[in-house]
Amino acid sequence: MDRRSFIKKVGVGSLVAGSALAGATPALASKRRVNWKLVTTWPPNFPIFHQGVKKFAKDVKRMSRGRINIQVFAGGELIPALQSFDAVSQGTVEMGHGAAYYWAGKIPAAQFFTAVPFGMNAQGMNAWLYSGGGLELWREIYEPRNLVPFPMGNTGVQMGGWFRKKIDSPADLKGLKMRIPGLGGKVMAKAGVNPVLMSGGEIYTALERGTIDATEWVGPYHDQRLGLYRAAKHYYYPGWHEPGPTLELIINKAAWSDLAKELQMIIETAAAASNMWMLSEFEAKNLAALNTLKEKYKVQVHPFPKEVISTLRGYTQEVLEEEAAKDATFKRVYEAYRKFSANNAAWSEISEAAYANALKG
Amino acid sequence: MDRRSFIKKVGVGSLVAGSALAGATPALASKRRVNWKLVTTWPPNFPIFHQGVKKFAKDVKRMSRGRINIQVFAGGELIPALQSFDAVSQGTVEMGHGAAYYWAGKIPAAQFFTAVPFGMNAQGMNAWLYSGGGLELWREIYEPRNLVPFPMGNTGVQMGGWFRKKIDSPADLKGLKMRIPGLGGKVMAKAGVNPVLMSGGEIYTALERGTIDATEWVGPYHDQRLGLYRAAKHYYYPGWHEPGPTLELIINKAAWSDLAKELQMIIETAAAASNMWMLSEFEAKNLAALNTLKEKYKVQVHPFPKEVISTLRGYTQEVLEEEAAKDATFKRVYEAYRKFSANNAAWSEISEAAYANALKG
Repeated sequence: MDRRSFIKKVGVGSLVAGSALAGATPALASKRRVNWKLVTTWPPNFPIFHQGVKKFAKDVKRMSRGRINIQVFAGGELIPALQSFDAVSQGTVEMGHGAAYYWAGKIPAAQFFTAVPFGMNAQGMNAWLYSGGGLELWREIYEPRNLVPFPMGNTGVQMGGWFRKKIDSPADLKGLKMRIPGLGGKVMAKAGVNPVLMSGGEIYTALERGTIDATEWVGPYHDQRLGLYRAAKHYYYPGWHEPGPTLELIINKAAWSDLAKELQMIIETAAAASNMWMLSEFEAKNLAALNTLKEKYKVQVHPFPKEVISTLRGYTQEVLEEEAAKDATFKRVYEAYRKFSANNAAWSEISEAAYANALKG
Repeated sequence: MDRRSFIKKVGVGSLVAGSALAGATPALASKRRVNWKLVTTWPPNFPIFHQGVKKFAKDVKRMSRGRINIQVFAGGELIPALQSFDAVSQGTVEMGHGAAYYWAGKIPAAQFFTAVPFGMNAQGMNAWLYSGGGLELWREIYEPRNLVPFPMGNTGVQMGGWFRKKIDSPADLKGLKMRIPGLGGKVMAKAGVNPVLMSGGEIYTALERGTIDATEWVGPYHDQRLGLYRAAKHYYYPGWHEPGPTLELIINKAAWSDLAKELQMIIETAAAASNMWMLSEFEAKNLAALNTLKEKYKVQVHPFPKEVISTLRGYTQEVLEEEAAKDATFKRVYEAYRKFSANNAAWSEISEAAYANALKG
């Protein structure tokens, strides 16, 4: 029986009498134990990503004294990895962890809440989301899907990818088959690349057999584990296509609304703490892996040539304008994102970027 | 009666019988309400800093369902601002919020846990503290002072300061009186500056009257509120002396140990969330303030000349070596910090710094 039919049946008088009881509900509700399922889009034991989600679940359980018990399932353990959006939306499970740009097919604008090519880095994304109106916009856009999103994790600037041959100019990109999803793939297509989609588990074999000529993945720490250095020797930076992807926690709206306020606050705070913890882990672990790749596996690490970068930057502008023309929500989020990121870039010129130069010059 | 004398008096038999009761203790203890005082080193209503601490206290109260009630006092409201370290150490109050480098007179090594000239930015500091052993070292060093520290807030890269006259070369620094504390002040002294210490409330008048020729403070958002643009027109960047100061939460060790595990976790998690929230606020608010300073108040914003930066970087090296020679703990922390920050800088070259260039080039 839902609240509306309840009201019809018992009438207003009973409702008034019932309001004293209603006052007691939060206290009773707050003692109820909640057993939730969280499905991720990550392979089991995927370092930092899956590990961070498990730490989050453990922290939430402890902070709530066991009132929220979250069981974590890796991608494929309970449902296929990329069905988590629908599963959480429909309430089959209560929570999901992944990245908003995986849902670009359903909500093109979602991509702005992860990363866009030549967009903001981790610090900029956090400033936008927490203090620049980004999170409010994200919530508004997920609301009709019955989802409440939270930023939870960031990989930092990724690497540009692995190439079997050296890239000396934009012409060297033409005709390459590269595993690169999303907007980055669309940008590459304009440069003459044939962008290919495949899951993490398929990449190594495809690259090793020459089915693809290049691939992007994450960064040194994760790329090393995938063994990509055995299939390609040229490792390019920076990851212009993913300059600081934000990971997301999604919660079924009804499940969330049903939660006592203090439990909501525990989840929100734990997600924010995990957001920073994951970024810190990436930052702390990438360099050692990069050194191993260079020294032990003789990987050649190169910056993309300037002309390649400026070409890709130009195409990015075109891709974003084209997508904005196709979808009103994309356009709206793009405008908010662009405004904040332009300000953020101007401030960074005076602060982070100027300081990075001061360390060298 | 303490536990030891209790054991002596009641004997072992009773203790065994008592162990069933002891098993019930955590649950009883966890229902106890804790009323704590938190003193900050900040002026009342100091934006972001004080605001962030109040938000932290509110979040902790809500997450713990009122079991931890933290009353926040600004600097001077309960005790003088810079006596918070001693007050928390002695247990007069349970918590303090400030910055570790304020305690350089007691623990020179504490400076590494805030910021050192030409050291790590916010992202690097967080990586070191959370994932690189930094926090463990910090806890170890504060332990004999009965303090448990937590990173809680970061200003991001600060500005280099306000100067009444333009600085075109290192020679222009000679003879200047500048309000600049800590290691930054020591570095400036080597460049011929006369570093002066004064609290925030005194700076404007001193600069306006010419008692000092220059001052550093925080960044555009805070500097604008202090009205420094009315007393000096040259505003320099970047803040080489404070490239991403971490703020600290300190908790009296006995009070902390007495806390139920889930309440400890709530405080730790809320501190981590505040850490990122404050940085995001700074990032989001500094640019608008900088634009107001430039456009409305005709402030001239300059980068420090390259030669000034390289001179100060050289002196920084000397100052750090001198301090390390004087104090074994400083030396030990310096070595750990230097090792992590060298790795972090090498990784940043490939990631953040390379990406910042890709945005421009």
